[in-house]
This record gives sequence, structure tokens and C-alpha cells, in this order.
Amino acid sequence: MAAETCSALALAPLLGANSTAAAQYLCSQFDTVSLQLTDAKSAIDSTYLLFSAYLVFAMQLGFAMLCAGSVRAKNTMNIMLTNVIDAAAGGLFYYLFGFAFAFGAPSNPFIGRHFFGLKEVPAPGFDYSYFLYQWAFAIAAAGITSGSIAERTQFVAYLIYSSFLTGFVYPIVSHWIWSADGWASAARSAPHGLLFGSGVIDFAGSGVVHMVGGIAGLWGALIEGPRIGRFDHGGRSVALRGHSATLVVLGTFLLWFGWYGFNPGSFITILNSYGPIGSIHGQWSAVGRTAVTTTLAGCSAALTTLFVKRLQTGHWTVTDVCNGLLGGFAAITSGCSVVDPWAAVICGFVSAWVLIGFNKLAEKLKFDDPLEAAQLHGGCGAWGILFTALFARKKYVNEVYPGREGRPYGLFMGGGGRLLAAHVLQIVVIIGWVSCTMGPLFYGLNKMGLLRISAEDEMAGMDLTRHGGFAYAYHDDESSSHGGGPGLMLKNVRVEPGTTPTPPASQT
Amino acid sequence: MAAETCSALALAPLLGANSTAAAQYLCSQFDTVSLQLTDAKSAIDSTYLLFSAYLVFAMQLGFAMLCAGSVRAKNTMNIMLTNVIDAAAGGLFYYLFGFAFAFGAPSNPFIGRHFFGLKEVPAPGFDYSYFLYQWAFAIAAAGITSGSIAERTQFVAYLIYSSFLTGFVYPIVSHWIWSADGWASAARSAPHGLLFGSGVIDFAGSGVVHMVGGIAGLWGALIEGPRIGRFDHGGRSVALRGHSATLVVLGTFLLWFGWYGFNPGSFITILNSYGPIGSIHGQWSAVGRTAVTTTLAGCSAALTTLFVKRLQTGHWTVTDVCNGLLGGFAAITSGCSVVDPWAAVICGFVSAWVLIGFNKLAEKLKFDDPLEAAQLHGGCGAWGILFTALFARKKYVNEVYPGREGRPYGLFMGGGGRLLAAHVLQIVVIIGWVSCTMGPLFYGLNKMGLLRISAEDEMAGMDLTRHGGFAYAYHDDESSSHGGGPGLMLKNVRVEPGTTPTPPASQT
Amino acid sequence: MAAETCSALALAPLLGANSTAAAQYLCSQFDTVSLQLTDAKSAIDSTYLLFSAYLVFAMQLGFAMLCAGSVRAKNTMNIMLTNVIDAAAGGLFYYLFGFAFAFGAPSNPFIGRHFFGLKEVPAPGFDYSYFLYQWAFAIAAAGITSGSIAERTQFVAYLIYSSFLTGFVYPIVSHWIWSADGWASAARSAPHGLLFGSGVIDFAGSGVVHMVGGIAGLWGALIEGPRIGRFDHGGRSVALRGHSATLVVLGTFLLWFGWYGFNPGSFITILNSYGPIGSIHGQWSAVGRTAVTTTLAGCSAALTTLFVKRLQTGHWTVTDVCNGLLGGFAAITSGCSVVDPWAAVICGFVSAWVLIGFNKLAEKLKFDDPLEAAQLHGGCGAWGILFTALFARKKYVNEVYPGREGRPYGLFMGGGGRLLAAHVLQIVVIIGWVSCTMGPLFYGLNKMGLLRISAEDEMAGMDLTRHGGFAYAYHDDESSSHGGGPGLMLKNVRVEPGTTPTPPASQT
Repeated sequence: MAAETCSALALAPLLGANSTAAAQYLCSQFDTVSLQLTDAKSAIDSTYLLFSAYLVFAMQLGFAMLCAGSVRAKNTMNIMLTNVIDAAAGGLFYYLFGFAFAFGAPSNPFIGRHFFGLKEVPAPGFDYSYFLYQWAFAIAAAGITSGSIAERTQFVAYLIYSSFLTGFVYPIVSHWIWSADGWASAARSAPHGLLFGSGVIDFAGSGVVHMVGGIAGLWGALIEGPRIGRFDHGGRSVALRGHSATLVVLGTFLLWFGWYGFNPGSFITILNSYGPIGSIHGQWSAVGRTAVTTTLAGCSAALTTLFVKRLQTGHWTVTDVCNGLLGGFAAITSGCSVVDPWAAVICGFVSAWVLIGFNKLAEKLKFDDPLEAAQLHGGCGAWGILFTALFARKKYVNEVYPGREGRPYGLFMGGGGRLLAAHVLQIVVIIGWVSCTMGPLFYGLNKMGLLRISAEDEMAGMDLTRHGGFAYAYHDDESSSHGGGPGLMLKNVRVEPGTTPTPPASQT
Repeated sequence: MAAETCSALALAPLLGANSTAAAQYLCSQFDTVSLQLTDAKSAIDSTYLLFSAYLVFAMQLGFAMLCAGSVRAKNTMNIMLTNVIDAAAGGLFYYLFGFAFAFGAPSNPFIGRHFFGLKEVPAPGFDYSYFLYQWAFAIAAAGITSGSIAERTQFVAYLIYSSFLTGFVYPIVSHWIWSADGWASAARSAPHGLLFGSGVIDFAGSGVVHMVGGIAGLWGALIEGPRIGRFDHGGRSVALRGHSATLVVLGTFLLWFGWYGFNPGSFITILNSYGPIGSIHGQWSAVGRTAVTTTLAGCSAALTTLFVKRLQTGHWTVTDVCNGLLGGFAAITSGCSVVDPWAAVICGFVSAWVLIGFNKLAEKLKFDDPLEAAQLHGGCGAWGILFTALFARKKYVNEVYPGREGRPYGLFMGGGGRLLAAHVLQIVVIIGWVSCTMGPLFYGLNKMGLLRISAEDEMAGMDLTRHGGFAYAYHDDESSSHGGGPGLMLKNVRVEPGTTPTPPASQT
Repeated sequence: MAAETCSALALAPLLGANSTAAAQYLCSQFDTVSLQLTDAKSAIDSTYLLFSAYLVFAMQLGFAMLCAGSVRAKNTMNIMLTNVIDAAAGGLFYYLFGFAFAFGAPSNPFIGRHFFGLKEVPAPGFDYSYFLYQWAFAIAAAGITSGSIAERTQFVAYLIYSSFLTGFVYPIVSHWIWSADGWASAARSAPHGLLFGSGVIDFAGSGVVHMVGGIAGLWGALIEGPRIGRFDHGGRSVALRGHSATLVVLGTFLLWFGWYGFNPGSFITILNSYGPIGSIHGQWSAVGRTAVTTTLAGCSAALTTLFVKRLQTGHWTVTDVCNGLLGGFAAITSGCSVVDPWAAVICGFVSAWVLIGFNKLAEKLKFDDPLEAAQLHGGCGAWGILFTALFARKKYVNEVYPGREGRPYGLFMGGGGRLLAAHVLQIVVIIGWVSCTMGPLFYGLNKMGLLRISAEDEMAGMDLTRHGGFAYAYHDDESSSHGGGPGLMLKNVRVEPGTTPTPPASQT
């Protein structure tokens, strides 16, 4: 290897006398510099990717708080446990299988087949940080689904579907669209053609993550039916409000915070010039633009929701605004890197209406999703995929997905309809795939009596009957109870005679 | 463009025979390396700025939780909604106008005039990441004000003042002090002179952000007057305690966390040698020092508050300590980059006394600010500006604001009084500007009956009357209520007969 | 200094005529590039370290929420105040003394002696960011201890032990193991030999941080004895459940989030090739691997705890799963950088059993630790130290602790028993040192009546008697009370006649 320090003493005699040796000396110096720059790039990109992964992980906390706040107090421990276990079980299953199915290149267009248990990692382009980042995505998908089936699902069903989703269903979709081997990838490796000459531009996963989680939740919620009391005897909708708007806002802001890892982080690297080198044009700028489009879509969705809901209900409702905001994020996730900020504002505006529409529809169909997860992640996610096909800008598409001259871009931007065709197909295929895998799973669980809890447990709340007690004890009763028996589990639960007879009754 | 790989085969014949060609070959190699280093710098600085921006954004969550915990439970949804909307409306208005007014260079000393709707971004020095960072600052200012007028202000008033503040009032001040065109800027572009030969060193905005938010809140709170019950018939002060100390601590820690983006992040870049190159002296070190001074100022303010309050009240009060801590941060924000750690300890110590003093004064004047925001951000912010003028160190001032030999620095450090003069002027001008813009706005809103809610609504709480229900439902009542009517909105609100008759009464 | 731009005009004549001058010219160009790369490295590493430090700081928020949720509502303000004060007092004491004792090189093997009050900082390898990172570690140790003695300890005792621990006891241990001068350091500077030819590989502090905090807590909790009611008259264990599972989950996720600063961040730098330069092998990859091992250990510990507890208690308990998860993290903290992902799964699995075992033992011995902190951080921390000595892989050990050929590694990986010997000694020495310092301190405080609160205060809760009121007020009573007297402090505390007579009684 070349010496790292240039020695004029050694170089001088060469320059005058031996031009071959001098040239070799000089070039080895340049080669060293070039390799050092490569190392610097590795460090910069890894720093960028790892901290992005940490932000995406923080979304799991966001989900946990959002879910907790959106359910009734009696099911708080249950829903939070599912969020913790999504991350933990997801960690093991994605390590063992999921990552390999998703990104195990070289492979075929349908499923990956390397890196099981992180074997042969690191390889060029497949470092540990990349695994960590993708794991944080996988558990997000599972987290979405858990919201749809909240407050009435057996914990064991969560364990089963969550492992299946994180370890198999989701990785397959991400292979199709994000692996360079995938049949729908917009960055498919060169000898292969692109789907419709375009491939799918689902940059950070409105489809791959949000629709997958949302459609899975749709089937779960459909199959087990609405919560008791969600629709009254006359079929009218009855709101079963969550127990803490504070937790909803906390969760929403944490998701917003984490989305800055989700969307801009999906570039994976940040040191990449779009040319000419040394100019202001590079991935660092595209990354910033992506953070801005993400922000603006959420903002415009939130404001739209605020005013529409005000007109509809007469109230300024913070929880609806939070859901609207998240819908805007779910929608922009697909096109965030290839659209202009003004387009992101449109994306969010429409997204708010999409969510409101799907919520109306769900009410009509007596579909009960405590978190609106199917409507939000499924519906707004699908809108986002279409939006990208309409508004993707030529310049950005060619920068972010380089090396394929003349590729299609947004229909409204003059890029023709091929991107739209690919994106419609993406929506259809994702709905089909998730329905064909998660549908039967939930159906089977239901048949085996493993899906829905008993009506008694549902009335009493799962925390008391399955998770060892109520989540809160704001008022201590100082009487002691002995350990070992079930009495222990009720310690510090203030049972108020006459007002809330259900919980103690459920223990008999 | 120069080849990236040095070819000895190509170079060798040149070295011996054609020295001009050889020199060109070698220099093009060096130029390539230099441009690659420029790209690396772009990536490093963008990573630094973007993650700093994310941290500053997390402060909005901190504000939301701090505010929520500091108000009574019946106004929790209201105050959290204002925080969400600050971010969302701030996003659109800062995108459309604010950023252009603040940083639209080249312009004049008073107001910027480019980059409306992010047009012509990216430009050198004005990338998307810079916009995102500045947006997160703008919404922080609005968040401060919302605290001052909490628990008694109509939601529509929030919408109006927040848009005006984020889109106009705040951007103008940031133009004056932070744009290279600003009349008070300490980094004013070269042909123009500096204010008092010095300019204002308000590094991260004790004045630009905190005083602006605090003074705006002062006028709002003054004009609408104290909350009902805040002072009794005899004029004595009655504490209206917030409903959750846990949320206060959560918010405080989140603000602390986010302040590491606010203060050190204000360097905007991190790869900048203070010379000689290759030494340990550079912006990376100044950034770290800034994080340390920020930390120490908060710590010393918190400890001072702890002991003083213990002596005053006989209690160790965590909420007071939290406010003291935040006051220390607000104070050090101005000088964080140009003072020594030991000076930061002094800054925090005095800051604690400033806050205690202003709180006493507020009580005497029957001024009611539920978050102490005017006292804290206005008062401690002003102290911080003076502190900087006293303790700024010559070496640091010249490193952070380079290129102006012999510029003034801290009075106590031997730098003369010109910096102090500039800083006194800054305080006066900010008070004047904000008073002349926000004062009339709040006055007008009040005259039009748009500022303060009715006494009935205030007693009942805004959540029930305006925001669709109470924020919490820890105890479910299982009786169902039908959707559509106002009854829906009260679902899951535990109404305890006899003890809290107000909320249901307010619905009649 | 060399010019930064290569001038072919200047170079050409030299090349043909004056080879000495040409060589000097070229080499000065290379030197400039090399120095610029050094500056870039400083910026990259500082960015990496600072953001890691911010994450570690976020753990303090995690601790605060975890502790708050794990205690009864009546002691919430107390425990949160201790967490805030740990950070604040820790900031001042670590600034004044702690950092100097820990890292004040050059020094001796036992205690450092430079950098008091950050004097002479920055120095090569000792920049402000390094101080900030180490401060965040120091307060974590104090935070652990505060959990063990929660709900029954005088606040003044917290102030004393926390300053002593952060300012003296902990820094000494970190000097021994992490300073290049330390007698047990695995990276001891060259002329000195390594302990057992190996030194201690406690990469991120299973021993230095977690055992120190845990053992300190053990003595505190032992000396003051269990909380009233924790064991009944028959000696049976009675669970005194925390008041909010939501806060426990929030705190746990925040700690998980922050652990990505704690473990991967402990590399301090990220731009460091393991050779050959320009390859994929470097610290950036090891950092990612460390994040992965950390994740997997936590995941496997969480899942193990989930199922074991299900079998033991018949419930799926989220708070137990959270503790299991944290135990897994505490265990992997020692070896995270030098073991394979599969080994991390084993680490977590065993760690879950270790925690369950120590909890059983604690119950048997009537040892009361409200946060299980001694068991978790002490017990799992000790297991983690042994685990490292068993599973550390040769390649990783030599990359992370380079420059000592033939050094020992994990026993099960064929590396012999010397690392195990060093690690057993580490455990013994840490137990001894912390017992000999913190034991007498707690004993003395107890003798002086400064450790434990009175039985009346304990029954009433410390928040009411010492901290100015109850932490929560979900239901306002609109009756006003006058300021100035103790009545002020009880404002908005809903006193319900007949149900909870204790709190008002304690005020008489």
C-alpha cells in the first residue's frame, strides 16, 4: 500500500531521472487519497443511516403511545405489550429470515435467499446498519396492523401474525420493490428491464410498509368484527373514545419525529453527487428536500382536517388532526424524494379527504378499526402511490433512480402514463398478496378460536383478565394484599364500589 | 471532468517529456480530490444540520407536553391542539412567506425578498435543510407564546396570531440579526459596517426566538387578563396548578434534548477549520463547547432554583426546578458559542434569580401567565443577551464571527462596551417591534371578541365545550351513547354525580 | 501552509527544470489534502459522538419515566426530581471533578488528575464532545441507583449520594477500565502490560456503569430496608405496583432508543479503517454490528421473559417484559462490540433467567428494590461481563482493541481463560470498591437520620409532604384557596372524603 505521507526527498530524484517510478509514486499517493475518501464516505453514510434507523425505531415508541392513547384504559397494557413484542419478535424473525427474504441478493425477482441469520454480512452494500434500518421498517408494518385489531384480539394471535408478517409477508413485498433483483423495482439491476419501462417508485413505502400493514389490519378487523358496543342495536355508530388524548399527541409527534428517519433516511446514503462534483447538487440536497416535502404534506393534511372536521362536527378535535397529519405522512412516503414541495402540499390536502372518506365508508360498512389504521395506512398509502405517479418530476426521478435515460415520470408533469400503470399494478398486487396471505391466516386463527377474546373479557378489559392488572393506579389504597394469588394482580387498582362494577366482577 | 483514477501509464511519458501536460494532468487530479472533498463537506454538514433540525423539531413535542402538564386537565386538548397547529400552520406560512422574509438574500437590511415558496432553492448557502432548520425555530417562537395565553383564549385567536407570528413578525427579527443583509447582524456581509462596529451576537436566539415569543405572550396575557380564580377577591395570588407534573418533566427533558439541536446546531456547519488545518481547532470543537455551555447553564440554573425555592416554600418542587432549568437554557442561547463553560455556570445562576424575580413581579402586578413563558423566555432571554455582552471571549468571537479584526467582545473580558451597546439596543428594538405588531393584533382580536372565551366556557373547560370532550377517560362507563349528537362527545367522560357538576352543566 | 489550489502554471516549469522544487510543490499539495482529510475526520467523528451523547442523555428521560411509572402515584414528583437533579448536579460535579478523575491523562493507574473544570480542554483526544458523552454516562449510573431506593429516601440523601457517585466513585472505576492509564484497561498505553495479558473488555460499561449503579443501589436499599407494606406480617411478598404502566413502556422505549448512543457510541469515533483502506471493513461496520447485537440481546431477553412469566404467573405482563428487555441491554453492554449477533441472542436469553433468578432471591431475602435496579443492572451487568469473556471473537477483539498481537479472547471461542480471569477480577473489584465507598456513605446517612423518611411521610407519600403536592389533578375542584400558606400547595389535589383519608391527614 502507498505511504500516506508524501516524501519530497524520495520523490525528487525520481522526477528528474526515472519518470516511470515517479509516476508510480505519484499515482500511489493519489490512490491512497482516493481510498481514504472511500473510507470517509463509508463513515459519513453509515452515520447517516444509523441515526436514521434510530429515528425509525423511535416510531415504534410513537405507535405504542398512539395506540395506548387511542384505546380504552382497560386495554392499555395489552396494546402496549403488542408494540413491544412487535419490536422484539420482529427483531429475531427479521434477523433469522426476513432480511434474507427481502434483500438476500443475488437472487430472483420474487424472494431473496442470502444473509439468513446475517451470515456473510457485511458484504458490499449490505452492512449491519442496513439490516438495522430495514428491521425498523419491518416492525413498523406490524405496528400498523396491531392498531386495527386492538381491544378484542387474543395476545397469542398477535404473536402469530406479527411473526408471520415481519418474517415473511412484508419481506417479500420489499424484495419485489426495493431489492435490485425485485420484479417491480425502479432501480432494477441493468440487464433486466423495468416493469412498464418504469418500475415502481415507492421510495419509502406508502405501499411496501403502509398498505401492507393497513391491508393486513383490514382483514384482521373484518374477520373478527367490531368491538362490543361500537355499533348500537339500531346500527348507529358509537364512538368508543380512547382514554388519553395526551398519549395520542405524544405518539403523533414521535411518529412525526421518526418519519424524518423513515423518508429522508430511505436514501440510505447521503454522500452522492448528482454532478458536477463540488457543486451544490447532490443527495445531501435531495435528502433535505425529502424532509421538506414530508413536513409540508403532513402540515397541509393536518390543517385540512382541522377545518373540515370543524365544519362537520362543530369542534376543533386534536385527535382527528393527529390522524389527518399521519395520513399525510403515509401518503407522501411514496413520492417524497421525487416531487416538489408545492406538490407535497397538494398530496396532504387530498390525503385528508381520502381519510375522511374512508372513515365515512368504514362507518357505513360497520367496519371497526380503533386506530383507523386500515383507512389511514391503507387508504392514504394507496393515494400516495397514485400521487407519485401523477406528480413525480423528471429531474428528481433521474437523480434518485439514475442510469436509465428516458424513464417515465409523473403523468401531470408530462412523463406519460407508464409510471401510473406500474403504480396501479403495485396497489393491486399488494392488496392481492396481503389478502391471500394474511386473510387466510386471520381466518384460520378465527376458526381455531385463537383470534377474538370472549365477550366477558372484552367487557372487563384485557388488562385485568390477561395482563395482570389495570395499567393505572392514581389513588393508592393502603390495604395490603398477599402475593402469589390473583389478588396480587389487582393490588393498587382502585375499585370504587357502585360506580365501576365490571372489573372486579370479571375476576369471579 | 478529471479522471478519478490516477494512471501511471498515462502520466509517466508526460513527466519525462511534456512538463506542461504533466502539470495539467497532476493538477486536474488534485482538483478532482478537492471537489470530492467539497462534496464530502456538503454531506457532512447536511447530516449535521438535518439531525439538528430534527432535534429542534422535537422541542415542539416538548412544548406540547410541558404545556399540557402545566394546564388544568379540562384544557389539555386545547393547548395540545395549539401546539400541533403551530407546527402545521407554521410549516405552510413559513414555506410561503416566512423563510423569504427572513433569509431571502440578496435583499435590504430590513426584510428579505427571495425564496417565496422555496422558489430558487437550493442556492449556495440556502439548501432545503437550512429551510427545515429555520422552520423548526419559527414554530418554537409561536409555541412559547401559546403558553402565556393558555386556558382562556379562543382557538381562532391562536390560528391568527400563530400565522402572523411565524409568517411575519418573527422572520423580520431573524432577518435583522441572522441574515447577512440584516442591519444588526454580527456577520454582516463585508462592504457594510457592523452596528456599533460589532453587531448583535445572538447566536441561537435568546432574543430572536425567546424574547420574541415571550414579549408576544406578554401582550396576549396582559390584554386578556388573568384566568378566573387566579387572583382572589382580596387580590391574593392563587396557584392554579397544572394537572400532571409527569408531563411537565417529560416536556422539560424533551426540550433539553432538543436544545442540543437548537444551540450547537446554530453553527449550521461543523466542518470548518479555525486553523491550522489538520489541528484540533475547528468548528467541531466549538460545537461541542456550545453543547457543554448549554448543559452547564441549565444545570446551574436548576440547582439554584432548587435551593432558593426550598428556602422560600419549604418544598423541593420539581416543576419549579424544570422552569428554572429552561430559563437557564433560554439565557445561554444567545452566548452559548462564545463564552467559556465557567461563564455558563454564572449565566445559569443569575438566570434562576431573574426568573424568580420576574415571577414575583408578575404576581404583584396580577399578571397571569400559566407557563411563566413571558417571564422565562422574555426575562431570562433578555438576561442572556446582556450576559453575552459581558462574558463573550475574544478568541471565540473571532472564530465564530471571523473576518473582522479587532471587533468588540465581552465587557468583563476586556472587550469594551460596544457589544453591550448593541445588545441593549437589540433588547429595546425587539420589545418595540413585537409590541408594535403583536400588541395591536391582540388588542384588535380582543375588541372584536375573538380573543377570550366566555366565563362559562372557562369554568367548564375548553375541551368539553370546544374540542369534543375531556382528554382523559381512565374509567369507562359501559353504557353506550348514540353518535351524531353532542352526547357522543361526552362518551367515556366519567361524570361523578355531586362532585364536579360543572362540565355537564356547561352542556345545557 | 501549502496553497489549496494546484497551479499547473507554477508546477510546469518546475517539473522540467527543478525536480526538488517540483517534489516539494507536489508534496505540499498532498500534505494539504491529508490535513483536509484530518479535518473531515474531526467533523465526522464529532458529529457521530455528539449525537450519540444526545441519545445517551435521552436515557435520563427514559429513566425518569420508567421510575415514575414504577412507583406509586404519591411519590412521582419525588422520583422525577431525583432524575432531574441527577442530571443537573451530575453536570456540575462531573465538570468540576469527575471528568478529571476519570480521564485526566497523563496520570497513574488509579485516578486521573487533569482537566478539572475543563481546564486545558480541548486537547488531542479530549474535546468537549468527549466530556459531554462521558457526563451522560455518569448521570446514568446515578439514575440507576435512584431506582433502588425509591419511595422511602429523603431527598437530601439523594443530593449527597448522587454528587458523590457522579463526582468520585464512578469516575474512578471508569479511569481504571476506560482511561489509557487505567490498571485494568484493555487499551492500556503501550509500555505498560495488560492485566493478565488481556485487560478488561467492558466496552460500554456493563460493569463500569450498570454494576456500579446497581451495587450502589443494593447498599442503599439494604441499609434502609423495604418499603412499608412490601412484606406482610407473615413475611410474604406483597407487590406494590407502580402507578402507570404507560410510563414504564414509555421509559423503556426511550432507554432502548438511547442505548443506541450508549453502546455503538462507545466507539467514540466512526471513521477508522480496519484495513485494507477503501474496503468495507472499518469502524463504521463495527458500529453497525454493535447496534445489531444490542438490539438482538434485548429482543431475545424480552421474548424469554414474556414466555417464562406467562408460565409462572399465567399473565402476559408488559412491565416484566420491559424489565427483561432492559436486563438484556445491561448484559450486552459489555461485549456488544466484540461478539457475533448469534451470541447476543444467547446473551439476552440467559440474561432473562438471571433477572428472574435474582428477583426470586431478592424476594426470599426480603430485599426491596422498587425498580429491580440492583438485580437488573447489578445482576445482568455481571452476567454480561462473564458473557463477554466467554463469547468475544478473536477478529473483533483485535479490531476494536488493536495493536496487541495474540491477546486473549472468549473462552468458548478458543481464546483461553485469561480474559475470563480479568473479568472475574473486574466483578470482584467493582463490588468491593462500590461497597467500600457507597456502603459507608449510606450507613452514615442512616446513622445521622438523613436516609429514610418517617413512617408517616411514607404512608402519606413524599409528594404531599415534601414536594408541594400530588403530581396529578385530573379533576379540578373549582373552589379557590389562598396563596402563601400551605393550602396553596394542596390546590387542585382532589381530596375525596372517605376514600383516601391519608393525604390530608399527613398535613396536620
